[in-house]
Amino acid sequence: METGSVGIVAPQQHSFGEPLALACGRILREYTLVYETYGELNTERSNGVLICHALSGHHHAAGRHSADDKRPGWWDHYIGPGKPIDTNHFFVVSLNNLGGCHGSTGPASINPGTRRPWGPEFPTLRVRDWVHSQARLADLLGIEQWAAVVGGSLGGMQAMRWALEYPQRLRHCVVIASAMKLSAQNIAFNETARQAITSDPDFCDGRYLELNKQPRKGLAVARMIGHITYLSDDGLGSKFGRELRSGTLEPGVEEQVEFQIQSYLRHQGDSFSGSFDPNTYILMTRALDYFDLAREYDDDPVAAFSHARCKFLLVSFTSDWRFAPKRSREIVDALMHANLPVSYAEIESSMGHDAFLLPNQRYQRIFSTYMHRVAKESALGREQ
Amino acid sequence: METGSVGIVAPQQHSFGEPLALACGRILREYTLVYETYGELNTERSNGVLICHALSGHHHAAGRHSADDKRPGWWDHYIGPGKPIDTNHFFVVSLNNLGGCHGSTGPASINPGTRRPWGPEFPTLRVRDWVHSQARLADLLGIEQWAAVVGGSLGGMQAMRWALEYPQRLRHCVVIASAMKLSAQNIAFNETARQAITSDPDFCDGRYLELNKQPRKGLAVARMIGHITYLSDDGLGSKFGRELRSGTLEPGVEEQVEFQIQSYLRHQGDSFSGSFDPNTYILMTRALDYFDLAREYDDDPVAAFSHARCKFLLVSFTSDWRFAPKRSREIVDALMHANLPVSYAEIESSMGHDAFLLPNQRYQRIFSTYMHRVAKESALGREQ
Repeated sequence: METGSVGIVAPQQHSFGEPLALACGRILREYTLVYETYGELNTERSNGVLICHALSGHHHAAGRHSADDKRPGWWDHYIGPGKPIDTNHFFVVSLNNLGGCHGSTGPASINPGTRRPWGPEFPTLRVRDWVHSQARLADLLGIEQWAAVVGGSLGGMQAMRWALEYPQRLRHCVVIASAMKLSAQNIAFNETARQAITSDPDFCDGRYLELNKQPRKGLAVARMIGHITYLSDDGLGSKFGRELRSGTLEPGVEEQVEFQIQSYLRHQGDSFSGSFDPNTYILMTRALDYFDLAREYDDDPVAAFSHARCKFLLVSFTSDWRFAPKRSREIVDALMHANLPVSYAEIESSMGHDAFLLPNQRYQRIFSTYMHRVAKESALGREQ
Repeated sequence: METGSVGIVAPQQHSFGEPLALACGRILREYTLVYETYGELNTERSNGVLICHALSGHHHAAGRHSADDKRPGWWDHYIGPGKPIDTNHFFVVSLNNLGGCHGSTGPASINPGTRRPWGPEFPTLRVRDWVHSQARLADLLGIEQWAAVVGGSLGGMQAMRWALEYPQRLRHCVVIASAMKLSAQNIAFNETARQAITSDPDFCDGRYLELNKQPRKGLAVARMIGHITYLSDDGLGSKFGRELRSGTLEPGVEEQVEFQIQSYLRHQGDSFSGSFDPNTYILMTRALDYFDLAREYDDDPVAAFSHARCKFLLVSFTSDWRFAPKRSREIVDALMHANLPVSYAEIESSMGHDAFLLPNQRYQRIFSTYMHRVAKESALGREQ
């Protein structure tokens, strides 16, 4: 095992036969969830940590799938022995959400009713549906109460929803670079991304799999839009500036002129569109748009959080303009007014929204310190 | 004539037969420019004001084309009798730039060499090419020296380029919501917009006109990207919030759920894509990306501006995040170090980049005051 790595990991999966009633009113009769676990569940079953993934995430959060696996899981900087989510202390569970495209039941799966891919017939999901399905996974694993539910961005929304839906089932809620609801600008970017996908003629009203097509170009543009907005202006500037990839701006060579940022973005779009399901992208961005923590509490977040019983850690990043620090401060304010214990750190970073995935000394230290306390509590047994 | 309006106006056009050598090394043998004029040229020919348009602009800046014309020109708030660019004092010239799609020669025009639309064969243009062609228009109109060259955004880049290319031919340079060069983020948004257009199968490598097609969906997505970024997060929030257009988020009605901002954006994209040439959009965004005021002065803007002889007014808007106030302050700093007279106003506005087109009391007052001084100077005759 590499130092600080969970090493080689293998995904597991479980097919759930009990129907799941969804927020949209429909019922999913059966579904499969793919997940990975890192570390050992203690005998008290008190050291479970649930990782909730963001828009384009999946179950593979840490370690590698084989010795020659080029890249580790998406949150390998923060999960492993000696890392903030320390697998010497925690039993970490990371799943691919329902509606995903990495093994869990989603739009690309076969609809048992029709024996064809679900495609656009797959039900619209909300964050609470994920939380309900994650609770079934917790039941399966024998975890009645998580030491912590942890997530960044859309994952943070799931963590908050856990605190309201199952107040007795988590002791800590860690919400990183998230918000109680999206702004109109965020919805606008998501809508533009969806339009890029659905206006690709190979989208075929979402039935591309049946027709053996792939709206790759539309998905690539959608990803490019997302990618720019997850980075900061300064971060892009220091990474790429206005450097030319090749050619010059001198007369006669106009065709070759291209900035580094252009080829980088095209590459990002192309590689993503070869590995992600377009209907899942639409489903995930819709779940982001619809999430509104306090909607059913008369838009009063204090009333919403008054149902929670756990402690909270909130983290935001200074250059994140899609989930800006002020959106985290709104959550902190509501939690304080609801008399809930909350720690909050605003981390200096030039990396924009992506900062929550990247190494950052202060972030790592604060996250470690907090999770170390969670681990000590867990070792002492359940507190509530 | 309506109060404060230039009234009914009619575009004029002129075909230039003298070849124009372009920055890319190619030569445009002949071209047509469409323009409008408002107000009267005085006998000294000293009261000319040139308006340079932005990305999606054109020659129709003020007044109406007919009595039942629904909308006035794009800068009607700022051009007219008693308005900042006061047609009681100035002879205002507003043209559609070369490469445009509103009557001036551009990619949608017929290439005299092939008798087919230029399409992708139309030369790449830079801001300086526009300035050179605008100088020919000035010659045609008998204007040796403009009282002022005025522009917002990409128009401001043209105004600055005028000050360097033809230092003797303008007395004032008014640069609104602009920058000396785009940031990597700005280039990234433009690149994504171009990808949306070129990946539309109806783009046909830019030959859509010959093939009787139109990449409307791609252009609509491009416009949506632009539109979001020209508005501010707060501006979008106060205009749309998270209001639903119809339906609710209650169970069973998932299909109808749509936020106001979504239908607004789709409408903006659709209406734009029905009236704008996709190749022109690509050409204009490339000109924006390539513009770099100080590139040939060893990246020293002070050295660049040391060629200028005019006075400057700079204006920026607090919530403009694509051409942020700090980009204007960089220009102001360089002008001051180059010992050039410069006035600068940073205007409070929640309207983002679009603020330069919209009514705003402080902006109007400052703009009026400055232009009033320009008018007085012009009435006294040329100063230089």
